[in-house]
Amino acid sequence: MTTNQQIHLVLRPTAEAMAEHFKLIEAQVPELKDGQVLVRHHFLSLDPYMRGRMNDAKSYAAPQPLNAVMQGGTVGEIAASKSAGYAVGDKVVGFGGWQQFSVVDANTPGLLRKVDTTHVPLSAYLGAVGMPGVTAWYGLTQICKPSPGKTIVVSAASGAVGSAVGQLAKARGCRAVGIAGGAEKCDYVVDELGFDACIDYKAHKDPKALYEALKEATPDGVDGHFENVGGAVFDAVLARMNAFGRIALCGMISGYDGEPIPLKQPQLILTNRLMIEGFIVSEHMQFWPEALKELGTMVATGKLKYRESVAQGLAAAPEAFLGLLKGRNFGKQVVKLV
Amino acid sequence: MTTNQQIHLVLRPTAEAMAEHFKLIEAQVPELKDGQVLVRHHFLSLDPYMRGRMNDAKSYAAPQPLNAVMQGGTVGEIAASKSAGYAVGDKVVGFGGWQQFSVVDANTPGLLRKVDTTHVPLSAYLGAVGMPGVTAWYGLTQICKPSPGKTIVVSAASGAVGSAVGQLAKARGCRAVGIAGGAEKCDYVVDELGFDACIDYKAHKDPKALYEALKEATPDGVDGHFENVGGAVFDAVLARMNAFGRIALCGMISGYDGEPIPLKQPQLILTNRLMIEGFIVSEHMQFWPEALKELGTMVATGKLKYRESVAQGLAAAPEAFLGLLKGRNFGKQVVKLV
Repeated sequence: MTTNQQIHLVLRPTAEAMAEHFKLIEAQVPELKDGQVLVRHHFLSLDPYMRGRMNDAKSYAAPQPLNAVMQGGTVGEIAASKSAGYAVGDKVVGFGGWQQFSVVDANTPGLLRKVDTTHVPLSAYLGAVGMPGVTAWYGLTQICKPSPGKTIVVSAASGAVGSAVGQLAKARGCRAVGIAGGAEKCDYVVDELGFDACIDYKAHKDPKALYEALKEATPDGVDGHFENVGGAVFDAVLARMNAFGRIALCGMISGYDGEPIPLKQPQLILTNRLMIEGFIVSEHMQFWPEALKELGTMVATGKLKYRESVAQGLAAAPEAFLGLLKGRNFGKQVVKLV
Repeated sequence: MTTNQQIHLVLRPTAEAMAEHFKLIEAQVPELKDGQVLVRHHFLSLDPYMRGRMNDAKSYAAPQPLNAVMQGGTVGEIAASKSAGYAVGDKVVGFGGWQQFSVVDANTPGLLRKVDTTHVPLSAYLGAVGMPGVTAWYGLTQICKPSPGKTIVVSAASGAVGSAVGQLAKARGCRAVGIAGGAEKCDYVVDELGFDACIDYKAHKDPKALYEALKEATPDGVDGHFENVGGAVFDAVLARMNAFGRIALCGMISGYDGEPIPLKQPQLILTNRLMIEGFIVSEHMQFWPEALKELGTMVATGKLKYRESVAQGLAAAPEAFLGLLKGRNFGKQVVKLV
């Protein structure tokens, strides 16, 4: 029998998520049945949406069960196979959770997808060419609907989703303006990712100062906004929206712990005839092939850049996740297991 | 020369609008030039949007100028004509403002429209078969997109717009639930207009009580919402929205005086994947013919009922308008001049 280290959720947070809510468990890998494969995880994906699932609240996804493996995306390779469709060594993307190994029924559609790592690194299938990349692609192209010359703003701009939003917008002839926390992230967003401007929200704690900085960076106003954060950042961008502006609401990470954060001036939605749409990318699977094709090509040709924060070893996953919620990561947060 | 009484805006409100912001002026009707007609106003329309225009703030419409006639919709008849297209006695809808007469260039498209009063009363062209009716029609059909069996909620349900929203929703096989202020208005909405339920927000001042009343009236949740009010009412409905619910944002009258009212739980837009769109019906003129046809037919055949609050005489317009902002009207607020 092979040992399989796992991280379980053992307590639900009542306010801020903390390390004590997780526990490292030693389990055993069960014997494979016919049709099953054993996946050895190389990388786990850590994503903000996981915080919402830790609560036992009505949301778009069922809550993460207590005393069970934390759910999440994974990339790895086939370590053993009792399925004709998979050979040992095949690289796969799946949803194996915070553990070293997962046993997957290879006949159930959608659980595993083989990927080619010739031109795209394996971990990128958790980020730029995975769920975050498709999230960026869907919200930008299907909700913000950018066209050349328009101004697109994205919050959490150095993150896995935000960095792709801006680069996809630039590829469509838009002005791309990011909002991120700290000078280092902002420099990266402009100098390496090629955004036209990036505002450091930590350097503009006063709402008026944040608005003024945004105004300077968006001289023609904002036509499309991709919101990953909520709170004061969302308030500031809302006040800069042009008539008929379109807002993709993807995340409200600022309100994940504790009390919801109000939207200060909802009347702007009316006065500027804005459209706001919340979305979950997993509900729009029909767009994934088109999105992954564009994202994969852009990564392979160097036109879509990304950065990863890599935590080492399964035991580091909880702290890395809590850091992600506080914006301590820089780019896509993954955990390297192999 | 004919005397023409007018109401001017002479001061801009800094908080609540008051009578002192308006002034009754005696002017003279100028001589007609070629191509012009003189319209004698029978009814003025009073509408919530006028409050927004009294501020000197960026909004969808230019501010109402100071020391000029208050702008607004009017119906009346041609009193004199130097245009081949109009004869004395023709009934017309226009935008003549708060005055007894207006001189209109009949050659400018869109300023005047002849109407037939055989089956539809003249004043209805300011309400159910006018801007408020088309507002209801557009927001419901183009934004909420109702289908049979869905639940549609509308605030200010006994008003000119709200009453049409619910009856149009019923005609499309929906469950229609209104929110209105006071038992009398709620009884009217259910007993006379045929809504399935109506909640008296004045009887549920506590947000939790309002939510519970709404929950009882919408056992299957809310699929489409038509928001005329904002504030606590909007918060309550937002919390009852079903996944993929659609919200037409038409008015935020509760925030027109003074400070904006925050939206308490914007994260619900994300968790329930809602779509919210603000709109101004005058920007969607291509839908007016289709909308007016349905509305006119429904009024003529008794399928679209409405009520009017009629103020008598031009001098009564400011108080009637201020009452409208406080919800003292019951149905479409007009001022009868003739």
